[in-house]
Amino acid sequence: MGLPQEQQAAVKQGEGHDATAPVKKIPVETQPGPGQILVKINWTGLCASDKSLLHDEWAPFGVSMKPNAKGIAGHEGAGEVVAVHPDVESLWKVGDRAGVKWVVSICRECEFCTNGSDELQCPKQLNSGFTAAGTFQEYCLTDGRYATRLPDGVSDEEAGPIMCGGVTAYTACKRSAVKPGQWIVMIGAGGGLGHFGVQYAKAMGMRVIAIDGGEQKGKLCKDLGAEQFIDFAETKDIAAKVTEITTYGAHGAIVFAASPGGYQMAPALLRPGGTMVCVGLPADPTVIAGAPPIMLALKRLNIVGSVTGTSKDVEEALDFTARGLVHPILTKGSLSDVDKFCKQPSF
Amino acid sequence: MGLPQEQQAAVKQGEGHDATAPVKKIPVETQPGPGQILVKINWTGLCASDKSLLHDEWAPFGVSMKPNAKGIAGHEGAGEVVAVHPDVESLWKVGDRAGVKWVVSICRECEFCTNGSDELQCPKQLNSGFTAAGTFQEYCLTDGRYATRLPDGVSDEEAGPIMCGGVTAYTACKRSAVKPGQWIVMIGAGGGLGHFGVQYAKAMGMRVIAIDGGEQKGKLCKDLGAEQFIDFAETKDIAAKVTEITTYGAHGAIVFAASPGGYQMAPALLRPGGTMVCVGLPADPTVIAGAPPIMLALKRLNIVGSVTGTSKDVEEALDFTARGLVHPILTKGSLSDVDKFCKQPSF
Amino acid sequence: MGLPQEQQAAVKQGEGHDATAPVKKIPVETQPGPGQILVKINWTGLCASDKSLLHDEWAPFGVSMKPNAKGIAGHEGAGEVVAVHPDVESLWKVGDRAGVKWVVSICRECEFCTNGSDELQCPKQLNSGFTAAGTFQEYCLTDGRYATRLPDGVSDEEAGPIMCGGVTAYTACKRSAVKPGQWIVMIGAGGGLGHFGVQYAKAMGMRVIAIDGGEQKGKLCKDLGAEQFIDFAETKDIAAKVTEITTYGAHGAIVFAASPGGYQMAPALLRPGGTMVCVGLPADPTVIAGAPPIMLALKRLNIVGSVTGTSKDVEEALDFTARGLVHPILTKGSLSDVDKFCKQPSF
Amino acid sequence: MGLPQEQQAAVKQGEGHDATAPVKKIPVETQPGPGQILVKINWTGLCASDKSLLHDEWAPFGVSMKPNAKGIAGHEGAGEVVAVHPDVESLWKVGDRAGVKWVVSICRECEFCTNGSDELQCPKQLNSGFTAAGTFQEYCLTDGRYATRLPDGVSDEEAGPIMCGGVTAYTACKRSAVKPGQWIVMIGAGGGLGHFGVQYAKAMGMRVIAIDGGEQKGKLCKDLGAEQFIDFAETKDIAAKVTEITTYGAHGAIVFAASPGGYQMAPALLRPGGTMVCVGLPADPTVIAGAPPIMLALKRLNIVGSVTGTSKDVEEALDFTARGLVHPILTKGSLSDVDKFCKQPSF
Repeated sequence: MGLPQEQQAAVKQGEGHDATAPVKKIPVETQPGPGQILVKINWTGLCASDKSLLHDEWAPFGVSMKPNAKGIAGHEGAGEVVAVHPDVESLWKVGDRAGVKWVVSICRECEFCTNGSDELQCPKQLNSGFTAAGTFQEYCLTDGRYATRLPDGVSDEEAGPIMCGGVTAYTACKRSAVKPGQWIVMIGAGGGLGHFGVQYAKAMGMRVIAIDGGEQKGKLCKDLGAEQFIDFAETKDIAAKVTEITTYGAHGAIVFAASPGGYQMAPALLRPGGTMVCVGLPADPTVIAGAPPIMLALKRLNIVGSVTGTSKDVEEALDFTARGLVHPILTKGSLSDVDKFCKQPSF
Repeated sequence: MGLPQEQQAAVKQGEGHDATAPVKKIPVETQPGPGQILVKINWTGLCASDKSLLHDEWAPFGVSMKPNAKGIAGHEGAGEVVAVHPDVESLWKVGDRAGVKWVVSICRECEFCTNGSDELQCPKQLNSGFTAAGTFQEYCLTDGRYATRLPDGVSDEEAGPIMCGGVTAYTACKRSAVKPGQWIVMIGAGGGLGHFGVQYAKAMGMRVIAIDGGEQKGKLCKDLGAEQFIDFAETKDIAAKVTEITTYGAHGAIVFAASPGGYQMAPALLRPGGTMVCVGLPADPTVIAGAPPIMLALKRLNIVGSVTGTSKDVEEALDFTARGLVHPILTKGSLSDVDKFCKQPSF
Repeated sequence: MGLPQEQQAAVKQGEGHDATAPVKKIPVETQPGPGQILVKINWTGLCASDKSLLHDEWAPFGVSMKPNAKGIAGHEGAGEVVAVHPDVESLWKVGDRAGVKWVVSICRECEFCTNGSDELQCPKQLNSGFTAAGTFQEYCLTDGRYATRLPDGVSDEEAGPIMCGGVTAYTACKRSAVKPGQWIVMIGAGGGLGHFGVQYAKAMGMRVIAIDGGEQKGKLCKDLGAEQFIDFAETKDIAAKVTEITTYGAHGAIVFAASPGGYQMAPALLRPGGTMVCVGLPADPTVIAGAPPIMLALKRLNIVGSVTGTSKDVEEALDFTARGLVHPILTKGSLSDVDKFCKQPSF
Repeated sequence: MGLPQEQQAAVKQGEGHDATAPVKKIPVETQPGPGQILVKINWTGLCASDKSLLHDEWAPFGVSMKPNAKGIAGHEGAGEVVAVHPDVESLWKVGDRAGVKWVVSICRECEFCTNGSDELQCPKQLNSGFTAAGTFQEYCLTDGRYATRLPDGVSDEEAGPIMCGGVTAYTACKRSAVKPGQWIVMIGAGGGLGHFGVQYAKAMGMRVIAIDGGEQKGKLCKDLGAEQFIDFAETKDIAAKVTEITTYGAHGAIVFAASPGGYQMAPALLRPGGTMVCVGLPADPTVIAGAPPIMLALKRLNIVGSVTGTSKDVEEALDFTARGLVHPILTKGSLSDVDKFCKQPSF
């Protein structure tokens, strides 16, 4: 099969709030470099982080797209391997199905890579749509040693959003340390991350209290497996409501929403010894995830951060979908919709 | 042996910032009630929390001395049993040595008592100097089922401060999850809690970076076992210094100081995956122990609260002293010094 | 309501293999002692351990019924409180529903009670049908501080067997450290303990491979939630079958069957790092649960023991039934059936 | 610097009990293959496992030296890098100091490598002196991505034995889950592994009870930091002695000795909830590490296996030596002593 020399990609133009990502024709890199494979992207998720990167929203934290990304965002890609560098031919052959994640490659040699559970901290990691060209293109070069093998039973369409959104929600559930039969609150339960979180938590035996706004979100969360739904727009005292349901407060709470309100609310929803997991990243750099020391100390709370997941986490997250327990809810579009989406207000 | 009918006690007078605790004559309760023993207090520690309670500093958080405390603070007492209610005679006899802690009694029946590691969360607990009369008196009634048996090899003088300060520091070290051979930073390392923390951490195999102000504190911390001392008054970039020592940041950081500065500083001292333990309780109710969500998430940090310790923790903390590994550094005084101490500015 | 002065009980007669437990008339102890409540037993489970105790099968290990048991076995009782000693009136009132467990009371003061997770190791514990009269009687005195409050949504009929069989299976699942989405093998999955285990494991998100003998057991296990069933009577190489299903072996294996064969088989079913949980207690004192050191070391296996559960474990186990997720499968009988059952060969 | 074309090596001759390992002249492989470095071995440890491999003692378990090992045992090597393949020049340069371990290389792609803590289970691993030529030669080719960088403060002479013996003892201490201040028993405490174990345990804050035979071993163990020594040849009831010291039994026990006696003794030395770590590998294939199910269940014991350690474990183990806390005790020899040693009876 011959590979095309040209492809379509959504490429960042301009900077800051007014940046756009129109579709352009760019060359296909048909020859993978050492360790690389070329993946024909059949489906890619579009994550709120892509929008943040395209609009330089995290620039205050020193996080903005690097030249190697070539203006191409996207980090939830799934598709088919179409070219393989000889040195990874033992791993991949043309026709295999592969997924591309936020972390594209790691060094495998530093303190964090060799201790295993911390590969996500590798200081030499490359990131899709940040320090490497992402998945908003038809053909994406990626590291063959870190790309994910897609299992039977998970379509490309479903695999894409699991590469980041799914695994992020799954890892946050694990990080909450909530055990089967215990209560977990999810703030932003009806969103892109949250709707995954509800499903994973249920599959892990947790009891889910979903918090979001509006009847439609309520129905969605219940359908996905939440036992309880609290509409934040309708409920005056959310902490009182959580206490009513759980007696002493929830064992865990995940803040999926990238809003200051979620971070303010969460600690008060926890029982003594409970854990709050910080996932959503508000654009406002003054937001602090925390609590007064006297509250943290007397209730012996835990506040922890979580971001995406390791390659092992991704495999586990995919496995739940392969077993039919977790499904992304998709709004489908084409490459040209990237730009449209990025003009919408943040959720 | 006849028990006296009257005793001396430091009793709270007035309210708020101007409250005092002069020595007064009050009756001895010579007949322990069901489950109780009467302890002749030979030594009591005087903790910063006593000062906070005597001066109503935590009133904004709803924590102020209750009538049952009879104005008598103090929660680090050690002494000799002088009377025993018949129903706890299987546990105590006159002449035994007993310690009195911040938590005086628990219900042993609630969710938290029966799950064991959480007895400190018992909603029915009584607290010394808060909801029960404390140890700033010569004879203190206490719950025989929760009082601590003092081991040989620990004098009353040393046991007193371990009942709260020692066990608080020890439990915070455990809560940090720092393993033998790893780095722990202690903010306020030369203070009442911190000087215990340095010794416990060293005995637990951790490598200690002590932070405090001044040459004298530096010498003290080094003498107690700290490998490194950082003088916060002399060091411009404390995070840079910690990174220089540890390469990636410390594995854990305990904020012993009740100051806003410690809470601001701590998250930046941690390596990815590191844990910050919140112990010091600033009087200012607007202080938040926390970090921006993006920092928490990307570095996968943990922020946890810790307060005193369980009765098991106290036994373990005493055991380190009985083995000669941990010793309180004491400024001795008499009951009449309580009032003087409480007029000094906070450390 | 007046209490009867006499009741029926199944009382042990004779010793060893030929012992019987015919129904006799005995007095009701209508006045609970300090800390006690009197429970009218509506339903009691009959556990293999009762049979072992009635037949002195564990005598070789120094475990045989003590005089205080008065020959009355049974440790899975559920019913209604009919009398309360004044000193536990804050806990119980007549008409409350209560459950009686294998552990009847603990000292709440020893090393093991105060560290919480180990109350089952209390050297002063009393046990139902071993060192205290058990539940094979109509009215059973028990410790009000350790009896279990039965939640709405769990009938006496279902609560009985959960007091021991249910909580034993649930605790073994927790002890396996198998995480949601991972594989657990259950040996003796269709038996009294095993059929609980399959349900709890499924509710906890584990994937269950059930091992037992015969088509009927196979149907039962599948109905209860096992993904795979292996008939040990039909399958030549069980380890090969487990490897085929799991690629590297199961993450955990629980030996519920009290048979030597289960213990011989289990280690080979595990993947590296896997955990074998020992629950079933073979009558043959020469059976060893273990593996060659080279296998244990190279595969870094874990072999752990588990017995019943704490009072907290019991509450959690009941909660799964209250939520409709776990149900005992009961063969109902009357007191006079105890004797019949005990004459049947061991399963 | 020119590399020699020939070198000395101790090469296996014959099979089974009568095999020898005389020094022979063999070629130096001066050109490292992809990913490899060539290390001039300055010191190598000689481990009991080398002897077992040279004498085919583990053949009953399917473990015997493969052709690729070329008859060269040895897996505790330390020395200087003398040649580097271009593709690992970012990692190593000539003159760097490197250590060679039992695990020489891993695939970095399988289930076990990617989950990090389990790299030692990689089914594609190569092992020094088993599936790859070992360190009983002057110049050893090894995988540059898995070789260990030797820190300043650890001489080659000390680093050698830490590559296997040291890290094995250290990892076993971690696997015991014994916490600072708790008791650990070491069986074979004065041997090649044990003498490391005593030092690591002490540096980790544990209290060590050393078991071995003879006055000289007793003095050694005490000098290395053991609090108690039990001479197994002199002590009739070792379990009673351990109970006398610890009240309820030890929290952990490591069997370093490759003798059946150690495995028989260990479970009885543990308190409820305690952990036995299996390290020593007896030649007798019928030895089982285990306990009767009733003992395992009622005492809720843990029996776990441990073998060497990950590359991270090795770095940690070296760090304790660099800090001056742990030192191997060496009997020095030359290559020609390998053969002599292997004729001695097992210790």
